[in-house]
Amino acid sequence: MPRFAGLGTFARLPELDRVGRADVAVVGLPFDTGTSYRPGARFGPGAIRQGSRLLRPYNPALGVSPFAKFQVADASDLAITPFDIDRAVKEIEAGIDALAQRAPRAVALGGDHTVALPILRSLHRRFGPVAVVHFDAHLDTWDTYFDAPVTHGTPFRRAAEEGLLRAGSCVHLGTRASLYGDQDLPDDARLGFHVISAGDIADLGVRAVGDAVHARVATAPVYVSVDVDVLDPAHAPGTGTPEPGGLSSRELLALVRLMSGLQVVGADVVEVSPAYDHAEITAIAAAHVVYELISVFSLAEGPPEGA
Amino acid sequence: MPRFAGLGTFARLPELDRVGRADVAVVGLPFDTGTSYRPGARFGPGAIRQGSRLLRPYNPALGVSPFAKFQVADASDLAITPFDIDRAVKEIEAGIDALAQRAPRAVALGGDHTVALPILRSLHRRFGPVAVVHFDAHLDTWDTYFDAPVTHGTPFRRAAEEGLLRAGSCVHLGTRASLYGDQDLPDDARLGFHVISAGDIADLGVRAVGDAVHARVATAPVYVSVDVDVLDPAHAPGTGTPEPGGLSSRELLALVRLMSGLQVVGADVVEVSPAYDHAEITAIAAAHVVYELISVFSLAEGPPEGA
Amino acid sequence: MPRFAGLGTFARLPELDRVGRADVAVVGLPFDTGTSYRPGARFGPGAIRQGSRLLRPYNPALGVSPFAKFQVADASDLAITPFDIDRAVKEIEAGIDALAQRAPRAVALGGDHTVALPILRSLHRRFGPVAVVHFDAHLDTWDTYFDAPVTHGTPFRRAAEEGLLRAGSCVHLGTRASLYGDQDLPDDARLGFHVISAGDIADLGVRAVGDAVHARVATAPVYVSVDVDVLDPAHAPGTGTPEPGGLSSRELLALVRLMSGLQVVGADVVEVSPAYDHAEITAIAAAHVVYELISVFSLAEGPPEGA
Amino acid sequence: MPRFAGLGTFARLPELDRVGRADVAVVGLPFDTGTSYRPGARFGPGAIRQGSRLLRPYNPALGVSPFAKFQVADASDLAITPFDIDRAVKEIEAGIDALAQRAPRAVALGGDHTVALPILRSLHRRFGPVAVVHFDAHLDTWDTYFDAPVTHGTPFRRAAEEGLLRAGSCVHLGTRASLYGDQDLPDDARLGFHVISAGDIADLGVRAVGDAVHARVATAPVYVSVDVDVLDPAHAPGTGTPEPGGLSSRELLALVRLMSGLQVVGADVVEVSPAYDHAEITAIAAAHVVYELISVFSLAEGPPEGA
Amino acid sequence: MPRFAGLGTFARLPELDRVGRADVAVVGLPFDTGTSYRPGARFGPGAIRQGSRLLRPYNPALGVSPFAKFQVADASDLAITPFDIDRAVKEIEAGIDALAQRAPRAVALGGDHTVALPILRSLHRRFGPVAVVHFDAHLDTWDTYFDAPVTHGTPFRRAAEEGLLRAGSCVHLGTRASLYGDQDLPDDARLGFHVISAGDIADLGVRAVGDAVHARVATAPVYVSVDVDVLDPAHAPGTGTPEPGGLSSRELLALVRLMSGLQVVGADVVEVSPAYDHAEITAIAAAHVVYELISVFSLAEGPPEGA
Amino acid sequence: MPRFAGLGTFARLPELDRVGRADVAVVGLPFDTGTSYRPGARFGPGAIRQGSRLLRPYNPALGVSPFAKFQVADASDLAITPFDIDRAVKEIEAGIDALAQRAPRAVALGGDHTVALPILRSLHRRFGPVAVVHFDAHLDTWDTYFDAPVTHGTPFRRAAEEGLLRAGSCVHLGTRASLYGDQDLPDDARLGFHVISAGDIADLGVRAVGDAVHARVATAPVYVSVDVDVLDPAHAPGTGTPEPGGLSSRELLALVRLMSGLQVVGADVVEVSPAYDHAEITAIAAAHVVYELISVFSLAEGPPEGA
Repeated sequence: MPRFAGLGTFARLPELDRVGRADVAVVGLPFDTGTSYRPGARFGPGAIRQGSRLLRPYNPALGVSPFAKFQVADASDLAITPFDIDRAVKEIEAGIDALAQRAPRAVALGGDHTVALPILRSLHRRFGPVAVVHFDAHLDTWDTYFDAPVTHGTPFRRAAEEGLLRAGSCVHLGTRASLYGDQDLPDDARLGFHVISAGDIADLGVRAVGDAVHARVATAPVYVSVDVDVLDPAHAPGTGTPEPGGLSSRELLALVRLMSGLQVVGADVVEVSPAYDHAEITAIAAAHVVYELISVFSLAEGPPEGA
Repeated sequence: MPRFAGLGTFARLPELDRVGRADVAVVGLPFDTGTSYRPGARFGPGAIRQGSRLLRPYNPALGVSPFAKFQVADASDLAITPFDIDRAVKEIEAGIDALAQRAPRAVALGGDHTVALPILRSLHRRFGPVAVVHFDAHLDTWDTYFDAPVTHGTPFRRAAEEGLLRAGSCVHLGTRASLYGDQDLPDDARLGFHVISAGDIADLGVRAVGDAVHARVATAPVYVSVDVDVLDPAHAPGTGTPEPGGLSSRELLALVRLMSGLQVVGADVVEVSPAYDHAEITAIAAAHVVYELISVFSLAEGPPEGA
Repeated sequence: MPRFAGLGTFARLPELDRVGRADVAVVGLPFDTGTSYRPGARFGPGAIRQGSRLLRPYNPALGVSPFAKFQVADASDLAITPFDIDRAVKEIEAGIDALAQRAPRAVALGGDHTVALPILRSLHRRFGPVAVVHFDAHLDTWDTYFDAPVTHGTPFRRAAEEGLLRAGSCVHLGTRASLYGDQDLPDDARLGFHVISAGDIADLGVRAVGDAVHARVATAPVYVSVDVDVLDPAHAPGTGTPEPGGLSSRELLALVRLMSGLQVVGADVVEVSPAYDHAEITAIAAAHVVYELISVFSLAEGPPEGA
Repeated sequence: MPRFAGLGTFARLPELDRVGRADVAVVGLPFDTGTSYRPGARFGPGAIRQGSRLLRPYNPALGVSPFAKFQVADASDLAITPFDIDRAVKEIEAGIDALAQRAPRAVALGGDHTVALPILRSLHRRFGPVAVVHFDAHLDTWDTYFDAPVTHGTPFRRAAEEGLLRAGSCVHLGTRASLYGDQDLPDDARLGFHVISAGDIADLGVRAVGDAVHARVATAPVYVSVDVDVLDPAHAPGTGTPEPGGLSSRELLALVRLMSGLQVVGADVVEVSPAYDHAEITAIAAAHVVYELISVFSLAEGPPEGA
Repeated sequence: MPRFAGLGTFARLPELDRVGRADVAVVGLPFDTGTSYRPGARFGPGAIRQGSRLLRPYNPALGVSPFAKFQVADASDLAITPFDIDRAVKEIEAGIDALAQRAPRAVALGGDHTVALPILRSLHRRFGPVAVVHFDAHLDTWDTYFDAPVTHGTPFRRAAEEGLLRAGSCVHLGTRASLYGDQDLPDDARLGFHVISAGDIADLGVRAVGDAVHARVATAPVYVSVDVDVLDPAHAPGTGTPEPGGLSSRELLALVRLMSGLQVVGADVVEVSPAYDHAEITAIAAAHVVYELISVFSLAEGPPEGA
Repeated sequence: MPRFAGLGTFARLPELDRVGRADVAVVGLPFDTGTSYRPGARFGPGAIRQGSRLLRPYNPALGVSPFAKFQVADASDLAITPFDIDRAVKEIEAGIDALAQRAPRAVALGGDHTVALPILRSLHRRFGPVAVVHFDAHLDTWDTYFDAPVTHGTPFRRAAEEGLLRAGSCVHLGTRASLYGDQDLPDDARLGFHVISAGDIADLGVRAVGDAVHARVATAPVYVSVDVDVLDPAHAPGTGTPEPGGLSSRELLALVRLMSGLQVVGADVVEVSPAYDHAEITAIAAAHVVYELISVFSLAEGPPEGA
């Protein structure tokens, strides 16, 4: 079947309900009601799947054939209401719990960043507190917005408050957005995060940043959360809250590869909003990030420990 | 000031807070959390304002200078939460109530069609039950969607159930979308609506349709609700649930002009989703509909009766 | 599952390989190597599926629930080489033959118009010569182009030469393109076609045109072939050889509905080239044409006679 | 040579400087400094040429092979300064004068509508006062804008004042834009124009409108000026001052064909602004209008009388 | 008010006419008649304002809350004729003079680069000759184009000739375009400019470039002029004369921040042409440059000396 | 003539058939039937010409006026069938042979990468085996695809098998795509290629890479083949098989300039697919690559040796 043809799963992988179980699942979370600016990430999972059609089996940068080493499958999308954030978050948490019965590891395709909170709640039940390696233009540790406690700007504050995170093991990579006030960064630090900004990455280079992440995370179980707006808008126009001064796709892919060796227990790629994309460049970049995350999974020995 | 320059209000009208009171206000309702498919109508009010820059003072089709006859002003946007439909609907209702103190008539710029419900609630307090002339590809009298009672697919069912509408005086114009079942149309009729579909308009011509609307509405106070998806996607690509087979902009503008002589007490133009627009054609069409609605208002004698 | 979510089949129908057999199948033919101007129709089937997400079960214009009356399924795409027209045509013919074992009727999603030739060859084996109702801006009865006998400009000449068509029962609807010479129309007539141009449709109205088609086709088994460029470029920018002066989507959908009562034995919707589309308006229009074709199928009594 | 290949002249015609003389020339006037809203028509001639690649030699609607009957050639673009309207207008007038030595008839490709004034000045020297058949959403008989007497909103007022027009023989077709005041239409009438608005065309039908134009113009030498914004923005998004409620491309092409039999001495197609176009639909429509104008020329007997 | 809502001023700042006076004003100069290639920068100020909606009060890279330290206000747009460059330049100069009475510092939003000349004339009256730090793909010291002395390719030559610049203190940053001849660079040097090309910036790194600028400018009053085409077209497609090989937005923002400590007396961000933008990425980048410039202003002690 | 005006040749150079002979020709190869994913590169030559309008005569980075030193001309496009790969490849080979009679050096404008094979065949007749410096995201040394031996994924394998290449002198620059298996790289090495991946270029810097290429190629006659997908999709969205993690346009242009001093005997720039481009950024980048290649040619002494 030519790559442009056929009903599209991620990277043309089998559907999970046809293979029953898998080592790694890709699952769509088409939800964007937590978005504060441009909505549209509800169409993100479909766009990332479409952007994955050119992916081939062998990853030369990591020297691995991830789909050969592991059974990887597409679990389709969770059914999530767009009309009620609280209910949606519960639906996601339940869906991720259920998915874990069939696949010990998953990469979630957002959807907006709200989805990280219910995923972290589910992971906490299996792994206890986790480290978070968070690629984003924004801190996402704000408190409330229009009185709403759970939106795409707050998942990591809520997670920290609920004890889902390993204080001192979390790190933001690529942040650069302007902030609400000079207390945002101290507040963020108190929640347990270290900031390596987009400017820092330019100054230090990707290898040194990779080393710093390894030093901070060490052997903790880790959740890798990739907001596609960590990329510069040139590389990812199709997102909801774009901020200039971001990473190139080459930098992001290299950094994700450098997560190899960490004990990654879950991951997401979020905030792809295809109505703002052009020629699928955001979706294609996101699909490659997912592919690198699956490759990183496939380099680990055995299933994640808590599973 | 060239038409392409200057901070943009609708048709370069004064801001309401600078003139204090007005005969007619234009007000933005940047809300799209009730959207079931493509979101983005939160950016609709801004897009319609941008699309209104070429509007000039004299309306040759109706022979009126609406901004000369009436003080018309731009009331900016209401502040509405994107994160909670119930709260948003209350905010809109309160905002429309407050606006009525300063301007007896308003054209609301959506936002998704959910906004019609709180507007109708506010109008009911002033005018009692109203007729609705509803331009749309869809009936918008569905019951619930994902258990949510208040979304952009349900405002007229909720309004009918709450007694806000004049049974027997309401009419849909331009509907054509496929339906959930063969009971949708009988259910809709029981709520008091008459259907003049897009195909009927092609067959009958706009004048006959205008006559039919006048016959049905007669002297009732009437709310004119224009979902921009009543236009064919060729004329309005920038909308959330496009359906082919719709009206041309020439037909829609002619039909809106034919509302002259009705006792129009309120109006909306909704579902402009600019991320899907091209060259502002949807926004420009919507702005012209607003202009025709204001012109229709300006042809009436005195303020609406219930005011 | 929200309509924007889930792996996408046409109208969210089941996949044919999950239901085994169906009354009607939708099948993608992602092939565009026969294109003389803008390529890209290889992505047409996927785009039409994406454009079909809003389709609901009940067709109010025809008063039928096509998916309830008939088992309709998505047969995915045929695997077709993009590198060799002759081989591709054979692959399509074999694929359509095989599909007929599982579903007696099919709507093919193009792909460029070349695909009509192998489909007609397959239908001929089952039904003998068929009438063709051909919606298109072009005649598609040209002889060769760059010496190539089988391209998207020639399927109906080749079919006529091969005896696949019922001479005197075929009709072009909506043609308007400029021609190579003044013998093109007489040549076309000699192949058995009658022309009702886009201008004729404007003059006569859709009902009279429908009557003319019924008079010409009568009780013959008929193949309905819809090149989306029969629509005006305003309604279908996403196509390969656009010609202004075309039909509106309202006219086309009405005309397709008027095919009810004919003995339709096969159909295609071709030449959707999504790289040139905007906001999916071409794909959505095409998806609605497919829906109307399935509805027309579902109004017939029993399977097609030759089956 | 495939139609998508080769250096592009209009309809792949020879360049005028290669053939020396021609019966009809196409000439680009890449000038947009007279634009009051969206600029960009300087790229119009190139876009129209690109949009003309699919034109074939035989025009079935008029039954003529225009390029066979007449030598038609592409005179490339005039070199016109973008920085000074007065100088530019003189450059255009001189260029049109010079072109007339090599080709007695020309279709000018705009550029903005300012270009009509120097063309009319040149035609006046050859033919005396001419009738104007003016397709446009706007009257283009305004007086000044920012004190500037010569812009794209004023060519026909200046022409009337200079005695270039036959009072009583001029007609606007398709106008609909809102106006500056209730004196605009009486002023326009005093300049010698009759208005057949877009709404009138919908009501009367194209044949009756064609008859009305013939009755008004009779045997006068006539200049046909087609502002592409006479089309609805759905059909022509790529223009500078779009107004909804316009003509379909089918209506416009039919009306242009109905100019057959008039003594057409010159023509333009202006205001194509490709930065706002999509999939070249505006440019393709404009190219077809040019083709119909050349066809109308080719149906005349001999060169224009004044030549 | 959500960030996507409300009538838009730059960064949602108050309008200058509401606050009376300000420390820093943002003012739009919607003028593009000096453009030699793609026009459209007349829509630049509006686009930059729309692109500024996500800006938040605290600038973490510079550690400053610019809108808290200084009263910053939006002075709307100047009314400038699009039809006459000479008159326009006088209107801009007068407008900037008048604005200086109400706000000692301003960032001008272009508009094309022509606007720098009247601004420099106005600044010269207040500060005498100034240094210019000029970010651009082009030198903008050409002499004439089509005999026109004042266009977007000539402001700094005219300014140098008029004695508005400090010879020896001016610098181009990011230039890379091909030139008319091998004398362009020596000519430019004679006018007092030093060139640090885009390639130099890649080789030296932003810090070294910042140091070089400080060394060259020292304590001179300085005008910072940012042509958005200094960015690579990937980062700024929405501009009139794009040249590949440019800066990333991360580099540009870092360089602008490094202007801190200079005595900046005025600034512009020009050549945003939104018709060519995608997903507002150019406008957003430009808005961030404005924000950094205001931040740089806010780090200075007191008003500029000459004020 | 303003740069936006006039019939467009590459960089407004004369047409070859007007000057008869040239030192360097630019020739279009509008062919894309060898494309495995997104087609459309048949429109590439026209797009690159349009993207070259801003090129000026002096190249400051290389200090050369290439069009002054050499007669450079545009040879228009070759006429190539889109319907048959074998025939097309023969047409290209014959066309390149014929062109060599009139211009000893040429830069071919693709078209898809298939075109490199017939060019190499032609070059082999004149120069014997050549080195290849190949900029691409992909290896293009795959064997067959859908049994087809000659497609855009295979030109360098076929060339190596045919003995057209200098084993040990060839190099890939910028590759990064995922591969079919772990044998792809060893297979590629056996064909005589060395890989310097996109990641290697980031690590080493462009100067070191340039040195490595010179060391490998030395004095061999060399063919420089630039697939525009070597650029990151941010810099070149308009291509058929985009892969994130690519070069910036600044890196690519610098690397091409570093080819100065090699004995370059031919070159191509391929895979520009304008339907996926935005604001011509891909076409403009490609045009600049062509300009740099011509500049590199112009720095050589005399015609290439084999000529």
